Amino acid sequence: MEYFKDISRIAYEGPQSTNPFAFKYYNPEEKVQGKTMEEHLRFSVAYWHTFVESGSDPFGAGTMERPWDGYTGMDLAKARVEAAFEFFEKLGVPYFCFHDVDIAPEGNTLRETNRNLDTIVGMIKEYMKDSNTRLLWNTANNFTHPRFIHGAATSNNADVFAYAAAKVKKGLEIGKELGGENYVFWGGREGYETLLNTDMKQELDNLARFFHMVVDYAEEIGYEGQFLIEPKPKEPMKHLYDFDVATGYAFLQNYGLTDHFKFNIEANHATLAGHTFEHELHYARIHNILGSVDANQGDLLLGWDTDEFPSDLYSSVLAMYEILKNGGLGKGGLNFDAKVRRGSFKPEDLFHAHISGMDTYAAGLKVASRLLDDGVLEDIISKRYSSYGEGIGADIVNDRTDIHKLEEHILDAGSIEHQSGRLEKIRSILNQYLLTEFSR
Amino acid sequence: MEYFKDISRIAYEGPQSTNPFAFKYYNPEEKVQGKTMEEHLRFSVAYWHTFVESGSDPFGAGTMERPWDGYTGMDLAKARVEAAFEFFEKLGVPYFCFHDVDIAPEGNTLRETNRNLDTIVGMIKEYMKDSNTRLLWNTANNFTHPRFIHGAATSNNADVFAYAAAKVKKGLEIGKELGGENYVFWGGREGYETLLNTDMKQELDNLARFFHMVVDYAEEIGYEGQFLIEPKPKEPMKHLYDFDVATGYAFLQNYGLTDHFKFNIEANHATLAGHTFEHELHYARIHNILGSVDANQGDLLLGWDTDEFPSDLYSSVLAMYEILKNGGLGKGGLNFDAKVRRGSFKPEDLFHAHISGMDTYAAGLKVASRLLDDGVLEDIISKRYSSYGEGIGADIVNDRTDIHKLEEHILDAGSIEHQSGRLEKIRSILNQYLLTEFSR
Amino acid sequence: MEYFKDISRIAYEGPQSTNPFAFKYYNPEEKVQGKTMEEHLRFSVAYWHTFVESGSDPFGAGTMERPWDGYTGMDLAKARVEAAFEFFEKLGVPYFCFHDVDIAPEGNTLRETNRNLDTIVGMIKEYMKDSNTRLLWNTANNFTHPRFIHGAATSNNADVFAYAAAKVKKGLEIGKELGGENYVFWGGREGYETLLNTDMKQELDNLARFFHMVVDYAEEIGYEGQFLIEPKPKEPMKHLYDFDVATGYAFLQNYGLTDHFKFNIEANHATLAGHTFEHELHYARIHNILGSVDANQGDLLLGWDTDEFPSDLYSSVLAMYEILKNGGLGKGGLNFDAKVRRGSFKPEDLFHAHISGMDTYAAGLKVASRLLDDGVLEDIISKRYSSYGEGIGADIVNDRTDIHKLEEHILDAGSIEHQSGRLEKIRSILNQYLLTEFSR
Amino acid sequence: MEYFKDISRIAYEGPQSTNPFAFKYYNPEEKVQGKTMEEHLRFSVAYWHTFVESGSDPFGAGTMERPWDGYTGMDLAKARVEAAFEFFEKLGVPYFCFHDVDIAPEGNTLRETNRNLDTIVGMIKEYMKDSNTRLLWNTANNFTHPRFIHGAATSNNADVFAYAAAKVKKGLEIGKELGGENYVFWGGREGYETLLNTDMKQELDNLARFFHMVVDYAEEIGYEGQFLIEPKPKEPMKHLYDFDVATGYAFLQNYGLTDHFKFNIEANHATLAGHTFEHELHYARIHNILGSVDANQGDLLLGWDTDEFPSDLYSSVLAMYEILKNGGLGKGGLNFDAKVRRGSFKPEDLFHAHISGMDTYAAGLKVASRLLDDGVLEDIISKRYSSYGEGIGADIVNDRTDIHKLEEHILDAGSIEHQSGRLEKIRSILNQYLLTEFSR
Repeated sequence: MEYFKDISRIAYEGPQSTNPFAFKYYNPEEKVQGKTMEEHLRFSVAYWHTFVESGSDPFGAGTMERPWDGYTGMDLAKARVEAAFEFFEKLGVPYFCFHDVDIAPEGNTLRETNRNLDTIVGMIKEYMKDSNTRLLWNTANNFTHPRFIHGAATSNNADVFAYAAAKVKKGLEIGKELGGENYVFWGGREGYETLLNTDMKQELDNLARFFHMVVDYAEEIGYEGQFLIEPKPKEPMKHLYDFDVATGYAFLQNYGLTDHFKFNIEANHATLAGHTFEHELHYARIHNILGSVDANQGDLLLGWDTDEFPSDLYSSVLAMYEILKNGGLGKGGLNFDAKVRRGSFKPEDLFHAHISGMDTYAAGLKVASRLLDDGVLEDIISKRYSSYGEGIGADIVNDRTDIHKLEEHILDAGSIEHQSGRLEKIRSILNQYLLTEFSR
Repeated sequence: MEYFKDISRIAYEGPQSTNPFAFKYYNPEEKVQGKTMEEHLRFSVAYWHTFVESGSDPFGAGTMERPWDGYTGMDLAKARVEAAFEFFEKLGVPYFCFHDVDIAPEGNTLRETNRNLDTIVGMIKEYMKDSNTRLLWNTANNFTHPRFIHGAATSNNADVFAYAAAKVKKGLEIGKELGGENYVFWGGREGYETLLNTDMKQELDNLARFFHMVVDYAEEIGYEGQFLIEPKPKEPMKHLYDFDVATGYAFLQNYGLTDHFKFNIEANHATLAGHTFEHELHYARIHNILGSVDANQGDLLLGWDTDEFPSDLYSSVLAMYEILKNGGLGKGGLNFDAKVRRGSFKPEDLFHAHISGMDTYAAGLKVASRLLDDGVLEDIISKRYSSYGEGIGADIVNDRTDIHKLEEHILDAGSIEHQSGRLEKIRSILNQYLLTEFSR
Repeated sequence: MEYFKDISRIAYEGPQSTNPFAFKYYNPEEKVQGKTMEEHLRFSVAYWHTFVESGSDPFGAGTMERPWDGYTGMDLAKARVEAAFEFFEKLGVPYFCFHDVDIAPEGNTLRETNRNLDTIVGMIKEYMKDSNTRLLWNTANNFTHPRFIHGAATSNNADVFAYAAAKVKKGLEIGKELGGENYVFWGGREGYETLLNTDMKQELDNLARFFHMVVDYAEEIGYEGQFLIEPKPKEPMKHLYDFDVATGYAFLQNYGLTDHFKFNIEANHATLAGHTFEHELHYARIHNILGSVDANQGDLLLGWDTDEFPSDLYSSVLAMYEILKNGGLGKGGLNFDAKVRRGSFKPEDLFHAHISGMDTYAAGLKVASRLLDDGVLEDIISKRYSSYGEGIGADIVNDRTDIHKLEEHILDAGSIEHQSGRLEKIRSILNQYLLTEFSR
Repeated sequence: MEYFKDISRIAYEGPQSTNPFAFKYYNPEEKVQGKTMEEHLRFSVAYWHTFVESGSDPFGAGTMERPWDGYTGMDLAKARVEAAFEFFEKLGVPYFCFHDVDIAPEGNTLRETNRNLDTIVGMIKEYMKDSNTRLLWNTANNFTHPRFIHGAATSNNADVFAYAAAKVKKGLEIGKELGGENYVFWGGREGYETLLNTDMKQELDNLARFFHMVVDYAEEIGYEGQFLIEPKPKEPMKHLYDFDVATGYAFLQNYGLTDHFKFNIEANHATLAGHTFEHELHYARIHNILGSVDANQGDLLLGWDTDEFPSDLYSSVLAMYEILKNGGLGKGGLNFDAKVRRGSFKPEDLFHAHISGMDTYAAGLKVASRLLDDGVLEDIISKRYSSYGEGIGADIVNDRTDIHKLEEHILDAGSIEHQSGRLEKIRSILNQYLLTEFSR
């Protein structure tokens, strides 16, 4: 069965195209910085948002019209797999991601759930043989079911800890089976609703124990995917333990886990934590813990996770700039952890949304690449910090000085000469790069 | 004396120019929608930010290096006038705006202050004779001086009410003298620090009395400028009475003032109130109270008024779209109520910043104009609301129905057919217009 | 059948009681300011949160354990009515509120839905005969069903306008039948997801047409309840038209609706709009549009509507202060539009939560009453504004002056004497009232 | 000269006192948990807010009336010392804190500045001989002067790094001279205005080098105070590197500095970072890095650092609860990093404000102590986590299990039994403790 009958394979038609089902900027074969766009961008479809999401919100029922709406149970799960691979193919997307519960219904026991998973994983594996689309990452949904009401690895209930661990065990096995390149931990219930009934120390200790067991098991079975933590500051809980990258990094260091984890950074989670997306990417990059990206966007005037498809070009330019500076994302990719708005309920909106996201990042890549080629920001920074290349500055960065020498150096100095930060001019240049890239 | 020696008249050089002291998009003579860019954009320099601002912040002293730094008192005031008109000329900007205290120092009494104002106003008038730059609006600063500690027109102290009124009286006289096209009220202290010591009813009543007296005086002296209220939700006070346009509109209606006031909408104030800039413009437009614009931008991750120069193209496109739909701003304009960052302390940064702002709005105008020419949003909206053009919908909008008929119409109806809202596709189109405008 | 077997009638036991199922502060018979606590507080249970809510959130499934979990369809609806009246009786609460969809399931057509409603309304009416609990307000849920995807009265689809109107028509009939004292409009979908596809003018015009038709129908059938608009700034939509009280008031004035509507003010909606709860109450009070209260609380560090049960004593003191100053709420009441946390999923948590809320407001009432008896804030305010009682101040408030006289009064004045605002001292006094009320 | 002539020594008069210049809850001698209130609370006056602050804000000039207003230069510095010790004495406060620039004016060179400091430090030392007030901490203001425009230890300018280091060197010497118990680093300019011109890696590396040099120098001179980092997320910079405690802790671990630093946690900074105050205290406590506290409060509806005197009893109860659980603050204390509102400009407002703050914390201490005595939260937590005391839970926390055993344990399990989180009940209990503490 064909699920998206009216849609053909999406092709690149260039910036002037008026075909809504064509790429204007994303040209998979086009070379940028010595690699193809496809190699750079490693786009991924999020199974949950695209094939499972109903469009409900806290004040409204689901609205989505989907070609698989008639099915239920395992039939629904299978229909979704079929539809998914048709979608991947038509979109020409190299990766997908899923939670366990996205692909197969839960059974009455975990054993039953795993059996359902085995069936669907087998089917996915078959489909992958004939597909160019690979598994960017999988994960266990340890937050939706009521059993995770008070946390998963940080639950006050030891049975839940065990349950969550067993689900992750299965997740690694599935990841290995399907060649998943990463395994993600988003701790949607790893936090608290109120400090008043919470033993944070015990919860964090348990979370670390959990991760160590997972690392051990990965070694045991030879799982080679990269482990990724996905920070989020709050929602659904009042406070989540992986608040942002820095908080997660403090945790990893404190519990001896830095060798095994990097971060999966989501744009919308960054802004909910009070940071720009590029801040989180930059911080991770310079600490060598940038793993992968959830490419979406939030609404800074709204206080919840809107998970919108990325369309902000400023954001995609600066994100791609950080990623290029990082030498790419390695095993990571750009996963559209994004959902069509509740009012965009037609199947074709799924295509519009992904095309929009892919074009946004492709345009971002090209502008970022040009900025790098021209050394725009590099020149600014190199001039700005030049005082550390000589004299007392060089002594400081080469650890050849001490506080006595510094005092001596400055004690009788007059006023210090400064350079302008030039923020307004830099923003102007950025706009010019954005507006002229596609007229060259 | 020449204050900005290294800078020549800023000229339009087009999108590819690499000259930082040239316009890339702002071409004053260029025709858009039948008018020149200069006629559309009516840019204005804010005297306070550009000629008075020191660069201090709550945790830091002033940093700005200015060619008039050596002067004090009335000499400083005069030097600023000279520098200002040189700046206007070099920038080619058609308008400026000021508060009374920006142009002349306060004396020991209001009489003395007015004398200082008369001197400087005379000087400005002379300079205007040889200048193309006119006065967009002036206003009284009724918030900085300690006397306004508890408000101006809403002060608990009747003497302060009188003082504020007398300053506005002088302001109208100055506005008339200099041909000011508008007069603005920003109530920086018209609000409260705590409700616990505040009689809001009395304060609002007094504010209305104040405005009525001003309207009377304008009629008395034949002042023909447009009165404008500038909303801001908070800062410096805990709460400001003109929270946003809607709140101000409620006030005007309640006190019979709608015939005399429109709104001066600031982008940064809009976002501090939880609205997009375009929301405030749109709301004002459809209520016929859009007067003028303070063209700046805030940082949505920061909770205070950063008053940055506008550089966000999304914002300038949507702002210009609303302004074009409004048939322009009438007597209003685009005033750069924006300050260079504290770290951009060199005189040339003032040029970078204004060039950036003017180019941002010029690019916004061109993209908005193309959107209008192509009827992009108009078509979407016209199709979207087509059900009100016929049948029961037409009855509703023509007031030809009642609740009984509506019930009858729907009581046995099955499911209702909906259109997709298409947000993702619309954003994609917007990006395409932005990225291709300057490659046509 | 008894639904809450382990719980007896909740009684007042006083501040020292350690019985979790007793009131510590709420003593219905106790006289305060000449009326009983029960008369002052007019508490109401929200049917939806208490008898319908599942405990789901955007990242989690329902968790609530309810004694009526076994039922479905009309049987479930009936079981909930039985449980509700048992709950009202055990709690001793004088009022309840509901949306149409809370009490009866929707049918395939509106006619069927109305038939279901008739059955349950009949049953409720029977129960009310033997109950002291009355209907504070009812309303139509015009936001959950997918048909309201693009709005109800502001939908782009005329059929939806008709559907919404027919539901409100039925709502008035039900309100009349059950003696409801108010009728509430919360426009959960009356707003926009994006301005880019929205004709705000048409939508607001239609909303006004809708309200006028409702007013006409109320007159036609002799419905005597008070109409109330419930403002909320955003969520679920990007922007809601009834952003806050001031915005709603602007709308009512603009469309000639002020005679027919007051406001139902929710604490959590106030803070989402950037206001304190007491600000919204105060603003409504001095404009004579304070109708009723949704007594809940939000978390100011979270950006969505948490709808928590009220426990903040500062907030309840200041709310009750405004309500006492208003001479009470008239037909309005204190409706607990609040839900137990997802982790508080046991039936007895419903009692804990309501007891907590009722005690919070009872304590608030007593402290506010003492503040009023002692004239604490009245004295502060009367001294603070004393300058308007004489001289130029009296001339101002009695409209006996003009801008000339004010200028003359102040032109040669020296510095103006000010009083301290005393915020720190006032807060100290407030704390003292709070901490000592229950030790007198 | 007596600076506060109308004010006598503030005495404890108990909860019923109506004397605004008396303590109602703070009774220094009263024993709580085996120590006196004075020993527990270790209050400190912030020299800058109380003796230097002018009351200016970004839109207004200074308003404060101070008895030392007539002086300038070193005379002003000396007058402030005299006034300060009179204030300390009258308030009966055990500690004070200062920045270098608070106590002495800067000279033309650092050598001159240090000379000024020496004079005033000598004078302070003399005063301390006859005073019970000791130095809680001192610090260098490395943020106000224009030289710190682009940072101090993280400046792009090596001379500024040297300058900042030399100021800290002097700070340690002064701290040693005056017996300061801690030394604080608040990096008000250690962050960025825009990432676009920033080399964050170099800046963080330099910050670490800076701290290592300071640690070395402390060892060299035998300085024994505790080093404290004071986190703040943003303001005055767009982003500050010590965003919150977790971020600072990540930094300390990454650069091998954990042995030498703890944190000085400010309530208002916590909330600006999106955390509750008690969250930051709790996080620091369980990581053994809780050093000291800046006892103020913010306004959660305002987006900047309002630095209000603490009056929120919920906050003071929970803060004191964390501090008691920490076994006190060690060398740390409760510093009122708080300023009277701009409208509270009279000298006596300084007393009102400190009395309010001290009473707020004294009441908080007593309620927290009673909660501990009754084991209220301890019981809740111990029951809540009891599953980790036996069976699989005990295996987990004792590292006696692995992921295989956990899977086996849960694979065939049915549904998992949960406890309610009881948030509503707990809040109710908290209110009861608050309202009845002073009626026992």
